[in-house]
Amino acid sequence: MRYDTAIIGTGPAGLEAAITLTIRKKNIILIGKKNSSNKVRSAEKIDNYLGIPSVSGDDLAQKMLDHAASMGVEITDGRVTLIYPYGEYFGIQCGEDMIEASSVILATGVAPANTLPGENEFLGRGVSYCATCDAAMYKGKNAVVVSYSKDYEEEAIFLKKYASGVIYIPMYEFGEGKDAEEIMAADSGITVLKQKPAEIKGGFKADTLITDQDTLKTDGIFILRDQISAASLVPGLETEGGTVKCRRDMSTSVPGLYAAGDIAGAPYQLIKAAGEGLTAALSVVKYLNEKK
Amino acid sequence: MRYDTAIIGTGPAGLEAAITLTIRKKNIILIGKKNSSNKVRSAEKIDNYLGIPSVSGDDLAQKMLDHAASMGVEITDGRVTLIYPYGEYFGIQCGEDMIEASSVILATGVAPANTLPGENEFLGRGVSYCATCDAAMYKGKNAVVVSYSKDYEEEAIFLKKYASGVIYIPMYEFGEGKDAEEIMAADSGITVLKQKPAEIKGGFKADTLITDQDTLKTDGIFILRDQISAASLVPGLETEGGTVKCRRDMSTSVPGLYAAGDIAGAPYQLIKAAGEGLTAALSVVKYLNEKK
Repeated sequence: MRYDTAIIGTGPAGLEAAITLTIRKKNIILIGKKNSSNKVRSAEKIDNYLGIPSVSGDDLAQKMLDHAASMGVEITDGRVTLIYPYGEYFGIQCGEDMIEASSVILATGVAPANTLPGENEFLGRGVSYCATCDAAMYKGKNAVVVSYSKDYEEEAIFLKKYASGVIYIPMYEFGEGKDAEEIMAADSGITVLKQKPAEIKGGFKADTLITDQDTLKTDGIFILRDQISAASLVPGLETEGGTVKCRRDMSTSVPGLYAAGDIAGAPYQLIKAAGEGLTAALSVVKYLNEKK
Repeated sequence: MRYDTAIIGTGPAGLEAAITLTIRKKNIILIGKKNSSNKVRSAEKIDNYLGIPSVSGDDLAQKMLDHAASMGVEITDGRVTLIYPYGEYFGIQCGEDMIEASSVILATGVAPANTLPGENEFLGRGVSYCATCDAAMYKGKNAVVVSYSKDYEEEAIFLKKYASGVIYIPMYEFGEGKDAEEIMAADSGITVLKQKPAEIKGGFKADTLITDQDTLKTDGIFILRDQISAASLVPGLETEGGTVKCRRDMSTSVPGLYAAGDIAGAPYQLIKAAGEGLTAALSVVKYLNEKK
């Protein structure tokens, strides 16, 4: 089955696009976090979302989710790690699933400020963004997982079912003292290292992660972040300073792929993101009509 | 006194820009209708303004006005008929007042679909958009007023205090039967003609309005509409199909002048307008900082 549109991201841009395309009776899949965007959730007070004065990020995110739900919009919980434009349609890697859609709206939020030295160079050659996708290839091998969120602990544990050794480097507050480490080690056989990754090295394939304390030899490195840079996500997509180059109708350098919200550039504000979600959605409607 | 920014229009784009610039502590004047935009007010049900599901235009306009009021934003009731860029600042003709501002955000809504044949050609030479501004020049002369709203009846009556003869052509439902005409004639000496204007003619200056029934000789023609086309409003502004040509930061061909909302082009939707109001406001902040 092929969707009319895959919308990636459940912040204001993604939710607004989903509502607009649902009104237009398009067959969509909306992929992202069920609880909307962490960035929205964490805002203490928002004063400039016209019509909803002085609201907490938590409350505004809930209003947005409730609005989308009231229109019948459903969220597919997942993380997209690759979007491949085949011309006629897009192949979208989401966890272990490959999803097909005739068009894509990229609304994943602002890209990470920094990638690790060597990360972009070795992506697809020993560096991967999805441990569950590649786990089966690590039978009897060793892997290092650099994880930016507690949410990815499960992914590392899944990987350890195949790999003979997994080193887990948490880039977030990892439990209290050594207890959490011991529990993870006892449950899964994963080694937790609290070190700071500095550089990825290798020959044709990455084989080394250098940290502030160690040089770790490995068969592969997984980097698990909520956001993946747009350029890594979509091969061939033109970007500028980490954000996607867009026209005023939110079209990009890839036909059929539109961007909206923070990933489409400054200003990084909720109502601007929502407005762009609407514009991207109506541009998609036009694109789909013209394709027919 | 010179304002940092004059915002023209009180629909979602203008209100959002006013809120954003107020948060940024800019000295602004917001000019437009006190009750927001008629277009917003008249929408029966709006489903795609993220966070406020299934709302009437009336209710949404009120939420927006209340939000702006809660931030200390005030609306100057008025109609802008000319914005003149002097380079360092803008001169803004509002009724009989001339307002100065270092920057302008144009958020007047979508331009009228059609101007009268000859209207643009004779603008400033016998054709005017502001009867109260030019009334004093019509002592002992005759004028025709083509009016698109009941709101402009007062303006025609004011003009008649100077002009020896005023023909008033209502382009809207003008009262019931002949009573309203007789009242207007008795009160002010204005002649009401229910005819359809077809073309403005003249030599160097306009001197004739041709209607579907008559050829009216006159010293001047006033055309009173809620919206004035962007090209007529700002000399030198680049437009395309009636809307203002903008970059993604909402800047236009005139430095210091930004556009937002319907006047900046399709899609003609409220949340897109609000988002652009925010973007235009933050671009203005940058412009003002760089000017210093």
